[in-house]
Amino acid sequence: MPRRRGRPRRRRGPRRGGPPPQPGARAGALVDVTAGEALELVGGLLVDAGVPRERAAAVARVVVVAEAWGIASHGLQRVPTYVDRTLAGGHPPDAELVVVRDTGPLLTLDGGGGLGHWQVAHAVAEAVPRARRYGVALVAVGDSGHCGALGVYAADVAAAGLVGLVLSCGPAAMAPWGGARPLLSTSPVAGGLPTSGGHAVVDMALSTVARGTVARYAREGRPLPEGWALDAQGRPTADPAAALHGMLAPLGGAKGSALAFLVEALTAGLVGPSLSADVADFFDPAAHGRRQGIAHTVLVVDPAATDGRGDPAGARRRLDDLAARTVEAGGRVPGARRSRPDDLDPAAPLAVDGALWRELLARRGAAPAGRRR
Amino acid sequence: MPRRRGRPRRRRGPRRGGPPPQPGARAGALVDVTAGEALELVGGLLVDAGVPRERAAAVARVVVVAEAWGIASHGLQRVPTYVDRTLAGGHPPDAELVVVRDTGPLLTLDGGGGLGHWQVAHAVAEAVPRARRYGVALVAVGDSGHCGALGVYAADVAAAGLVGLVLSCGPAAMAPWGGARPLLSTSPVAGGLPTSGGHAVVDMALSTVARGTVARYAREGRPLPEGWALDAQGRPTADPAAALHGMLAPLGGAKGSALAFLVEALTAGLVGPSLSADVADFFDPAAHGRRQGIAHTVLVVDPAATDGRGDPAGARRRLDDLAARTVEAGGRVPGARRSRPDDLDPAAPLAVDGALWRELLARRGAAPAGRRR
Repeated sequence: MPRRRGRPRRRRGPRRGGPPPQPGARAGALVDVTAGEALELVGGLLVDAGVPRERAAAVARVVVVAEAWGIASHGLQRVPTYVDRTLAGGHPPDAELVVVRDTGPLLTLDGGGGLGHWQVAHAVAEAVPRARRYGVALVAVGDSGHCGALGVYAADVAAAGLVGLVLSCGPAAMAPWGGARPLLSTSPVAGGLPTSGGHAVVDMALSTVARGTVARYAREGRPLPEGWALDAQGRPTADPAAALHGMLAPLGGAKGSALAFLVEALTAGLVGPSLSADVADFFDPAAHGRRQGIAHTVLVVDPAATDGRGDPAGARRRLDDLAARTVEAGGRVPGARRSRPDDLDPAAPLAVDGALWRELLARRGAAPAGRRR
Repeated sequence: MPRRRGRPRRRRGPRRGGPPPQPGARAGALVDVTAGEALELVGGLLVDAGVPRERAAAVARVVVVAEAWGIASHGLQRVPTYVDRTLAGGHPPDAELVVVRDTGPLLTLDGGGGLGHWQVAHAVAEAVPRARRYGVALVAVGDSGHCGALGVYAADVAAAGLVGLVLSCGPAAMAPWGGARPLLSTSPVAGGLPTSGGHAVVDMALSTVARGTVARYAREGRPLPEGWALDAQGRPTADPAAALHGMLAPLGGAKGSALAFLVEALTAGLVGPSLSADVADFFDPAAHGRRQGIAHTVLVVDPAATDGRGDPAGARRRLDDLAARTVEAGGRVPGARRSRPDDLDPAAPLAVDGALWRELLARRGAAPAGRRR
């Protein structure tokens, strides 16, 4: 059905089986915009806040691809906070990525507190040629900020014909198994795999849901489904605000919690500077002036180098076969229907939260003229 | 409570909440042996089957450590099949690990169908010095066999002061999400992390339970708890035999299934030669003469090289801190109570399945003298 630009419509219903939006709730009405308009608005807001143009464009790309992929939790709704944190000094716009260690296959970078999106994009750009040369490359980025949907970076690796694993940490949102105080982040994990038909992109938090999804429920004034979250005292709660100050449940119980422990070790542990328990909370305005101290870990492997019989095409053939047989068995290839990030058409229609879009437009208009470039 | 050698006793009860053992069931009575006796018996059986002494000892070590750690599913119960598969040609005892590709940080090996234990142990031994030199190392082993509990290798990496991730594939046991035919293995994942107090060892299948646990229920004639398994037609089943010919449920639903897809891609996909759907089933006697074609992927990272501020001790300090704060928060550090594999005391008592122990003793006695070395 063709849509008219800017015409409000209702979401067909919550995607995760939650209750319908409450009457009078802020969200629910969508407006139709284009990807290009969203890229320009997000990039412009960041430039207004002092972020250099190229970095702002890198952030906007990841945000808008997430929105186009249907990951609203890591899309436009994050932008006001990116801007506020940048203006408050929590993401210094002039942060530099400094090389701390470079062995060739391993590159360690200090992010100086900058926004994570352009820093992880840079990590991928460094890891890809290194993996082509050495077969494997690991790029670690320390002292960085929130970087949005990890799957976008994993898809970029897949688009280069390589296999990528991208891990990150973030504000503590889960208790260790058996405990009742938040210590582990939602422990996001993404994997990108090239296939002849496109790619497979695994992209998930190891909590039952992403924290951004809880934030969306909070924005929309909707109660949380059972089993998602605990309040700060460790009691089950349906109140998204209490959940944001409390904890999320790990995927699959003890096993999911152990995997989250591993992700924490491979990011916050290996790279730092902070454990997730000490990461500045993205959703706490009082912490907007504090660097987050988030770590990202990017691993890239060249499938041309890993075939056990030395066939440079063997691994790519098996990855194609895995995707094809998944479909034959009646299953779904994770993320296969997500477009390649670089294939995002600026004319592509996006249905976005109307209230949020108006807020972003108003912020753009209200930006002090002196900050524009 | 001290135990008398060889004195039968009952298990205190199933560890995973299943029903009590059936009267007349084969298992349930335990006998007390020492780790040293178990090492000698397992190693001797493999030598009898033609496996060179050093390799047999490497296999026995992993099997007995798993038993000592309480992972009976990957302990002595696997040994009769290792022997039968070796004698039938499914694990050629004279297989060599052949270097297929060596860039320094990446080493790809062809396992020639050999038993996985000594091959993954060799992969770790290669990866550790490479990671010390390059900061990161990936060793891939193709065309290998079942290698037992991955956590043992991860713990070996941690004992070297490094961080390890060990992945493997195996016979197809899970359907892709949305499908109803087995395509993915149980997709085991292990991580090893050094801490000042010892180590953390994450070690799990991404199925609700390990296939070896289902095999143990089959041996013991016990029905499976609800939610663990499906039969070959995709219907829920409590019959462990039907489950071994059917499918296991993934941990945490769609997310666990996507993680299993990723593990399959990083092992069977990258290394091969077979996707899990084509791996010879360990539990099918008719397939004992067929090589399994399993792939193992070992990643090792040197924490001295990854600190975002360049402090060689920074990552180790944070890993210690993560372990300490996990305990402070009331939680458990995964695998912290498992002994270091090389610290296994030959005099340590092991309580093992009495019927299984007698079967192994009888096999040792019955081995043709000409096969002994």
